[in-house]
Amino acid sequence: MLSIAIPSSALINENDPKIKTFKIGLIARACAIFRVEEIVIYRDPKLNESKFIRDVLEYAETPQYLRKYIPIKRSLRYVGVLPPLKIPSHKPKLLKVGEIREGVIVDVAPDGTRWVDVGVKALAPLKSNAKRGARVTVRVCSKNPLVVEEAKPKEYWGYKVKISELGDLLKRKGVVITSRRCKTPSLNDLKSLKTDLTLIFGSPEEGVFEIAERLGVKVRGMCWNTIPMQGVETVRLEEAIFATLSIVNYLRWLNEV
Amino acid sequence: MLSIAIPSSALINENDPKIKTFKIGLIARACAIFRVEEIVIYRDPKLNESKFIRDVLEYAETPQYLRKYIPIKRSLRYVGVLPPLKIPSHKPKLLKVGEIREGVIVDVAPDGTRWVDVGVKALAPLKSNAKRGARVTVRVCSKNPLVVEEAKPKEYWGYKVKISELGDLLKRKGVVITSRRCKTPSLNDLKSLKTDLTLIFGSPEEGVFEIAERLGVKVRGMCWNTIPMQGVETVRLEEAIFATLSIVNYLRWLNEV
Repeated sequence: MLSIAIPSSALINENDPKIKTFKIGLIARACAIFRVEEIVIYRDPKLNESKFIRDVLEYAETPQYLRKYIPIKRSLRYVGVLPPLKIPSHKPKLLKVGEIREGVIVDVAPDGTRWVDVGVKALAPLKSNAKRGARVTVRVCSKNPLVVEEAKPKEYWGYKVKISELGDLLKRKGVVITSRRCKTPSLNDLKSLKTDLTLIFGSPEEGVFEIAERLGVKVRGMCWNTIPMQGVETVRLEEAIFATLSIVNYLRWLNEV
Repeated sequence: MLSIAIPSSALINENDPKIKTFKIGLIARACAIFRVEEIVIYRDPKLNESKFIRDVLEYAETPQYLRKYIPIKRSLRYVGVLPPLKIPSHKPKLLKVGEIREGVIVDVAPDGTRWVDVGVKALAPLKSNAKRGARVTVRVCSKNPLVVEEAKPKEYWGYKVKISELGDLLKRKGVVITSRRCKTPSLNDLKSLKTDLTLIFGSPEEGVFEIAERLGVKVRGMCWNTIPMQGVETVRLEEAIFATLSIVNYLRWLNEV
């Protein structure tokens, strides 16, 4: 699994909530392009916008036809500026037999049958243990009547968002801290790319080491500078995420072929 | 030398000139981060915004204290949204003896002496053949009196912008077309990265091959897909530039060490 982690203070150098929302959108795009499956937001007491970042990231990842089930919140006021992710789970409203789609369980019948909204007028019955409001991934078996079954897509489907503590994050296997202060990885260093990987980024004001020190957390794991010889004084968080994921994606591809 | 080339139709899918300006800013940032020395805009008859793109790119590359010499133009109306490049040539106003700075020749005396504005009140005399209005790169030899001499910086200094024809561009050595339709380069393919390299990008609507066909231009050179296994339907131009430059930068570093 490929994960990235950003601090809750990731947007500390922006004041405008519209620009903050747009920047989260850029991070969501980078994650979608390079098939990141999990985005972790770790707590930085300097600025804790974890829930705001999570709400916007989850909104961006939700197929358009299911966004009506997301409660209206202050944190989602500027989601209009988000660039569309265009991931395979973002299907058009028009349904095709055989395709896999996202749905939301909108009702649970007394007999336990779940009724699922997959983006068309009719609801589909589903045998499932999921709760009302839960997202489900289903295959469309028939259109008329509408029949669906739970399914697992083979292609990249989207990311999950998680809020965590840096200390817990650093206990994971395959942790890589990204920092300008570190060495650029050699191809040998990158052999680990076959396994699970969590790329940890710092805030615009402080690197992961500084945040960890402030939190009294011991840092372990690899540490990479993925932009050797950078031509600018500072690289922005969304730029660093893009640059790092691009290299990781390419080298994972090299390892696979 | 590292160059990138984009079509004059690069912003065809945006209508708002403010957003167009912002996107050019993102491209400028990507080029600065990865030390691109030349940005070429090649003519696509479908939409020819070459001059607009050039004006904004050149404005972004100009040190803040020299921007007053750029004539006010319609194309520069929204330059306020440009992110700062923070490249080494963008020095603060405060002058340091020994440092290298950008200047503009503001006057040519009858004896041929050039008078250069390097961002402070006093003008510096300079022996040079450059014309009035030309940019020069100088070393500050002394502050009081202000003495400068022409100099060549060792660090990355910025990019030049050029308008060209695709046909001419494709005749260069080290041309690489980027396209989703191509193969992802192996490490062997990337040996050429030590030499001059021109990375050619298509427009949001058409790839380089389609544009070349429409222009009746024969395509030659390498062709790379730098985002193998992409998780989204379409990658935006600025995202493709970022992703490609990141890999090229990393692999050039590997070749150098």
